[in-house]
Amino acid sequence: MVLAARPAGMPKPSDFRLEETPVPEPSPGQVLVQNVFMSVDPYMRGRMNDRKSYAKPWQVGQPADGRAVGQVVRSRAPALAEGAWVASMLGWREYFVAGPEGLNPIDPDLAPPSAYLGVLGVPGFTGWYGLKEIGRPKPGETLVVSGAAGATGSLVAQLGKAWGCRVVGTAGSEDKCRWLRQACGVDVAIDYRRAGDLYEALRPACPAGIDVYFENVGGPMLDAVLRLINVNARIPLCGMISQYNLEVPEPGPRYLFSLIGNRGLMQGFIISDHMSRYPEFVGEVGPLLKAGRITYQETVVEGIERAVEAFVGLFSGDNTGKMLVRLGPEAR
Amino acid sequence: MVLAARPAGMPKPSDFRLEETPVPEPSPGQVLVQNVFMSVDPYMRGRMNDRKSYAKPWQVGQPADGRAVGQVVRSRAPALAEGAWVASMLGWREYFVAGPEGLNPIDPDLAPPSAYLGVLGVPGFTGWYGLKEIGRPKPGETLVVSGAAGATGSLVAQLGKAWGCRVVGTAGSEDKCRWLRQACGVDVAIDYRRAGDLYEALRPACPAGIDVYFENVGGPMLDAVLRLINVNARIPLCGMISQYNLEVPEPGPRYLFSLIGNRGLMQGFIISDHMSRYPEFVGEVGPLLKAGRITYQETVVEGIERAVEAFVGLFSGDNTGKMLVRLGPEAR
Repeated sequence: MVLAARPAGMPKPSDFRLEETPVPEPSPGQVLVQNVFMSVDPYMRGRMNDRKSYAKPWQVGQPADGRAVGQVVRSRAPALAEGAWVASMLGWREYFVAGPEGLNPIDPDLAPPSAYLGVLGVPGFTGWYGLKEIGRPKPGETLVVSGAAGATGSLVAQLGKAWGCRVVGTAGSEDKCRWLRQACGVDVAIDYRRAGDLYEALRPACPAGIDVYFENVGGPMLDAVLRLINVNARIPLCGMISQYNLEVPEPGPRYLFSLIGNRGLMQGFIISDHMSRYPEFVGEVGPLLKAGRITYQETVVEGIERAVEAFVGLFSGDNTGKMLVRLGPEAR
Repeated sequence: MVLAARPAGMPKPSDFRLEETPVPEPSPGQVLVQNVFMSVDPYMRGRMNDRKSYAKPWQVGQPADGRAVGQVVRSRAPALAEGAWVASMLGWREYFVAGPEGLNPIDPDLAPPSAYLGVLGVPGFTGWYGLKEIGRPKPGETLVVSGAAGATGSLVAQLGKAWGCRVVGTAGSEDKCRWLRQACGVDVAIDYRRAGDLYEALRPACPAGIDVYFENVGGPMLDAVLRLINVNARIPLCGMISQYNLEVPEPGPRYLFSLIGNRGLMQGFIISDHMSRYPEFVGEVGPLLKAGRITYQETVVEGIERAVEAFVGLFSGDNTGKMLVRLGPEAR
């Protein structure tokens, strides 16, 4: 899937085009991988712009890229057997040939391969790191998570519960809220689309104020939270999905000065700075997942031709949990 | 000076009233102090509201209070001789009687007593702490200071130069900017009232981007800065004077999400949490001041009956440097 034009605002189907080329043959030392799932993530919107940012812009006329998991279907690299599962940065295509350097073998016995794009992949790792290192929740504190039914937010909400917090999650439908309450165990789930005034909705949910706010969305939610934060509140800034498709971003929170009197901290982070912590994350969350103490959801869109649709759906909340595109069948 | 009514928006003269009472006599163990200067500070606007905050609200019908310096004119406390200079929290009155506990003797040989309300007092201490502990500037980095001609900002700007930074200061008149360039040694001073688009004004002043922004003002300046911050930028939130008299605060910065990609930190702080560091501050800044390596300005309004006028003048920038009210003559 090739970027055909840089989108203005929300991407359109005509901003991308599908190109077909023969499946390449691996050279000695290389493998041929058939992708099974690829990830679409909000941060990819930034890569469609021609602006310096933490992630390199995609080039017009070139294939898009991003995280994917697939299986080795032809191996000329001794380290990778045919049938092996690998994660790569070579999504947005059905097949690719590569040396073993950029490929991460994954363990399908710990979790299904698709989980390595979600709860055990970059989205989950992002939530774990931001909550642990910036949010630093203490037992008994109140944690608010926006985008709580998403791939990152749902892990944050469950880790918050596991670590002894009162957890309030916000999401964009009653179905998502029900899942948050029943499967993820949050104390209160708020459907922000039906809540009316977000401050009035959050206030009774947080009778002891807010100590940690894990920010995925930006916009009015942040403003409502700022009016309820406690002294020494921490706000990890993970994402602001509400702003990514605006040509001029919206005005920000009126109550930013609440950070002064409350000695609040707001800290942005980019998970690629912290990849050395990934094994620690898998070591901590993998067993919780395997033991069934952490749950997750996936929304799977079928076929590379629907990848752009899947991406755009992130911004209207079409997904519950991790949004994936199935690119091919599993070999076994 | 008594708070007569809680102001709505900008305080009016009728929100205060002057009351006269006989000068009290000290009991054994007490002293009578004649105040010579009192401080008016932006944070006092919050104390006029009946809202829980880091500083206790003033009570309607009771005298206002705040930092002041004065001289002991009658002593029945052996530790404090007549003529001694003391700083206290008992401003907004010409005389008071107190025990020695809440009084801080000051050294008029290190700096003139009024400096203990400004560059060597809470405003200077606030700037030193916020810059050193949150801003953490490194030599060669670019530091932007808003409210740079004020009591806090002008020390921050000069410490930035002393610590090897490129320093850009913003202030509200050409006179203030000239003083910043000529006396404080800033690299660029910008008159924000005449600058037009603040982003376009800051951009050429910060060719290598902004590493530290010391925030005193809030509003559009913060938004312009957020568009120019570098990776790992630090933003100590000291004050947002532009917002203090608004009944509903203005919308905040559109570019807050710039903190995410740039891993930016925004941290509010209240200097009263850190009073144990005050001796370290005086030990570091006192000698620089005595050696003439740090300069400061004061704006002195004469007489307690003009205290409210002096306070309100803070919000239109009537002051250059520390705004003081003279409450009485010096005894020697």
